[in-house]
Amino acid sequence: MIHATAKIGNDVTLGENVVVEENVVIGNHVSIGHHVVIKKDTIIGNYVQIGDLTVLGKTTSSNKKMTRKPGQILNPLIIEDHVTIGCNSVIYRHVTLENGVFVGDLSSIREMVIVGEDSIVGRNAIVETNIKIGRRVTIQTGCYITADMVIEDEVFIGPCCSSSNDKYMGMGNYKHQGPIICKGAKIGNNATLLPAVIIGENAIVGAGSVITKDVPANKTVVGNPGKIIK
Amino acid sequence: MIHATAKIGNDVTLGENVVVEENVVIGNHVSIGHHVVIKKDTIIGNYVQIGDLTVLGKTTSSNKKMTRKPGQILNPLIIEDHVTIGCNSVIYRHVTLENGVFVGDLSSIREMVIVGEDSIVGRNAIVETNIKIGRRVTIQTGCYITADMVIEDEVFIGPCCSSSNDKYMGMGNYKHQGPIICKGAKIGNNATLLPAVIIGENAIVGAGSVITKDVPANKTVVGNPGKIIK
Amino acid sequence: MIHATAKIGNDVTLGENVVVEENVVIGNHVSIGHHVVIKKDTIIGNYVQIGDLTVLGKTTSSNKKMTRKPGQILNPLIIEDHVTIGCNSVIYRHVTLENGVFVGDLSSIREMVIVGEDSIVGRNAIVETNIKIGRRVTIQTGCYITADMVIEDEVFIGPCCSSSNDKYMGMGNYKHQGPIICKGAKIGNNATLLPAVIIGENAIVGAGSVITKDVPANKTVVGNPGKIIK
Repeated sequence: MIHATAKIGNDVTLGENVVVEENVVIGNHVSIGHHVVIKKDTIIGNYVQIGDLTVLGKTTSSNKKMTRKPGQILNPLIIEDHVTIGCNSVIYRHVTLENGVFVGDLSSIREMVIVGEDSIVGRNAIVETNIKIGRRVTIQTGCYITADMVIEDEVFIGPCCSSSNDKYMGMGNYKHQGPIICKGAKIGNNATLLPAVIIGENAIVGAGSVITKDVPANKTVVGNPGKIIK
Repeated sequence: MIHATAKIGNDVTLGENVVVEENVVIGNHVSIGHHVVIKKDTIIGNYVQIGDLTVLGKTTSSNKKMTRKPGQILNPLIIEDHVTIGCNSVIYRHVTLENGVFVGDLSSIREMVIVGEDSIVGRNAIVETNIKIGRRVTIQTGCYITADMVIEDEVFIGPCCSSSNDKYMGMGNYKHQGPIICKGAKIGNNATLLPAVIIGENAIVGAGSVITKDVPANKTVVGNPGKIIK
Repeated sequence: MIHATAKIGNDVTLGENVVVEENVVIGNHVSIGHHVVIKKDTIIGNYVQIGDLTVLGKTTSSNKKMTRKPGQILNPLIIEDHVTIGCNSVIYRHVTLENGVFVGDLSSIREMVIVGEDSIVGRNAIVETNIKIGRRVTIQTGCYITADMVIEDEVFIGPCCSSSNDKYMGMGNYKHQGPIICKGAKIGNNATLLPAVIIGENAIVGAGSVITKDVPANKTVVGNPGKIIK
């Protein structure tokens, strides 16, 4: 089903049963897989590839217990040129995927997120809301990127890393703050980052480490709790 | 495809290519996304929202190596009023989602599970079989809830927590028992819970901790292995 | 949509809106769920069950920042007899699932992987490329199996285990090597395995452990970093 208000460019391949809702704009030289859902207002650039069974431009929802309500008016999802998105993924409204971004299968990116040029969001990685991800960042498979996080350029986050933003774990009405990962820092697989920790430029966090305090630039930290080893 | 035996209420929005199998009942004021599969016998209440590309009412399957066989006759999936379910999720038969429950995208809940009123099962959270989850519980993004677990009211489980129920890791034919998390307890992100541990009322488990023994009520435990700090 | 060149056997049940691309071969007594996508050249044996909303035979893609390019010509996906695959999963080309394999919902297996007879790839488990998985292996829910890993027969990997293959975390052009898990070894839930570690035959890795060095056969290792306890 292609809505009458949708605008579709030249050399666009649409799979079977693709749903294109109102006001969607699709550029030129684009390939859309089977059973894809492109929700209203989504803007897709040129040379974009979308895998099968993916949802683009989802609107936020919530229940009674959630403190962060989707009251805000959300902008459209913007997918710039040369972006590749996998199968069975879910990308929300008010996200910008800059030129050359790669998003793997079974991943999800919530509203109010920018993913910078040529960055990678791995398979099954889950990105929460209100996050700025820099350029040439690698977020590997299965990572959990909590809300209110900052990830600067050229950061590498290994598989299955986890982060959190609420040190009172739902107890109070405090401001949430996720970790801040500075330029070029590298996080080993399955590391755990506590709320608001700052990982300095080019710092290294060992695999499986639990980071409870800030890590200075250029230092290497390992263990539970993480300690500087060099 | 809507099967002739399905009963659909008033003010129901069905997306494109929705499959509604035999004996499904859908209440009033319900919104079902595109390409959703509602398998036979599923019962959906009023004011329910289902995201795109989700499967409701899946039947269990297994292979030769699995000890837990799906021999049992499973009841229908019951989705009560004001429930919200995300996109690309898979909910099995013999599950009850009570009033106001929220289930995120890319999540899965197996058979013989009850999720209590207003509780949250986060995005990409995976819930195994034979579990009672209380009311106003938060199971955050990417959690793994093993089979045979008990989660009481108002528990908070941070992102990416993991649990297990088989201390012999597939070696023998022992009874499995998952962790028991008592009322109001809070588990930090990426914590690891071993089989059958009891986390007492209002206890706190630090992020990245590995819990090998019971945690008394109101105590805080951190580290690997977890030790009481207050 | 069934492509004219596809060959479909006897007693095959196809769900609604199934897409079968060119040169697909499907055996006898097969059940395919709704909205399934079977991409070109995929070969499916007899007595196979495929859940709803699953993609079979995906081709690899990449972006500028990725070092591993999909230059190679990939063979078809081969699914042997009595295989069961869940819903919302994504299996690539150049994968062989041997007789009796079980793949859970929301899981993914990349190219150049063999899964041996009767093995289990759990729900939401993610398997990277270039891996040989033995027979009667259990990879539990939410595991992350990194590229260039070896998993011998009868290995048990608990839920949410994580592995990595690049000790320079994207810094250099070194050969990657994932862990090698020898016959009968057992890995506890949420354990972290560093690149190239060898887990000996029948060794046991405790839940939540971080394995930075080889583990000798028949030994048990726990903690962060992992130490031999017996």
